[in-house]
Amino acid sequence: MTALVQFQDASADIVTGAFDLKPADNCPKAPSVQAFVVNAADVASEGGTDPVFGTVTWKTLISGEKTNTSEFVLGIAEFGPGGTLHPHVHAPAEFYFGLTGSGIVTIDGVAHEIVPGVAIYIPGNAEHGTVAGPDGLRFAYGFAEAAFGQIEYRFSARVA
Amino acid sequence: MTALVQFQDASADIVTGAFDLKPADNCPKAPSVQAFVVNAADVASEGGTDPVFGTVTWKTLISGEKTNTSEFVLGIAEFGPGGTLHPHVHAPAEFYFGLTGSGIVTIDGVAHEIVPGVAIYIPGNAEHGTVAGPDGLRFAYGFAEAAFGQIEYRFSARVA
Repeated sequence: MTALVQFQDASADIVTGAFDLKPADNCPKAPSVQAFVVNAADVASEGGTDPVFGTVTWKTLISGEKTNTSEFVLGIAEFGPGGTLHPHVHAPAEFYFGLTGSGIVTIDGVAHEIVPGVAIYIPGNAEHGTVAGPDGLRFAYGFAEAAFGQIEYRFSARVA
Repeated sequence: MTALVQFQDASADIVTGAFDLKPADNCPKAPSVQAFVVNAADVASEGGTDPVFGTVTWKTLISGEKTNTSEFVLGIAEFGPGGTLHPHVHAPAEFYFGLTGSGIVTIDGVAHEIVPGVAIYIPGNAEHGTVAGPDGLRFAYGFAEAAFGQIEYRFSARVA
């Protein structure tokens, strides 16, 4: 837009004139929801250090703490041979979707095999734990929650 | 529970007595949310016949019309070499997660490559379409919606 502007220039003279105005480049921009791409190969692994969890590591791909999203959480869990995610509960329902390897997902005491192409539905507050097979295991997991960090994980057993 | 009951028996005599009552085996049971496993290999493909959609086929793994779930929808889209899912919009945000092959996902005019391990976030109401690469493409997709059938797909172009 064009506006009549009066300002002091560098030599303190008063300048008056018609100028085209545009927002300065450093103006804060309104947040907008944008499409984006995340390659798991570029995402750092988390976990693997707390024996309460087990040996599992994970990569968070879509989650409100790190992406401008609020609808769902998507991540990948990765296990070495015989790797573990110890039994735990959380309030939201979750899905697993097997990518590579194999494992046993035990939900409320019932064992289910996960292999590539297998989806598992875990109801909210169901106790579930995973033990990977001899070739390890990778699965995608997801929640209809805004952010992974808002989901409270409660493990069934404490490790001394 | 025990109750005093009066009824007509097979010979039409009136019988009165105290009986233990339990629900008949054919009583409708209250729905309960149960864990379950779905192997994509066992799920029938849908689609592939309507030129408005393109040549894509899909398998619905978790969705309120067919599974006792309400939190999210999970499916797999499958494309042959050069296969298509024509540009369309829907109100809910969606994720794609590349499983095999490759393709180009164009979102609001911007092309993104999808390969295994790549997650793509598609904002609600963003126009998006997919063209598979020379080896075809498979990706998982999901919505934080109760049922796939409740999501209105609006295609950008009509095919004569």
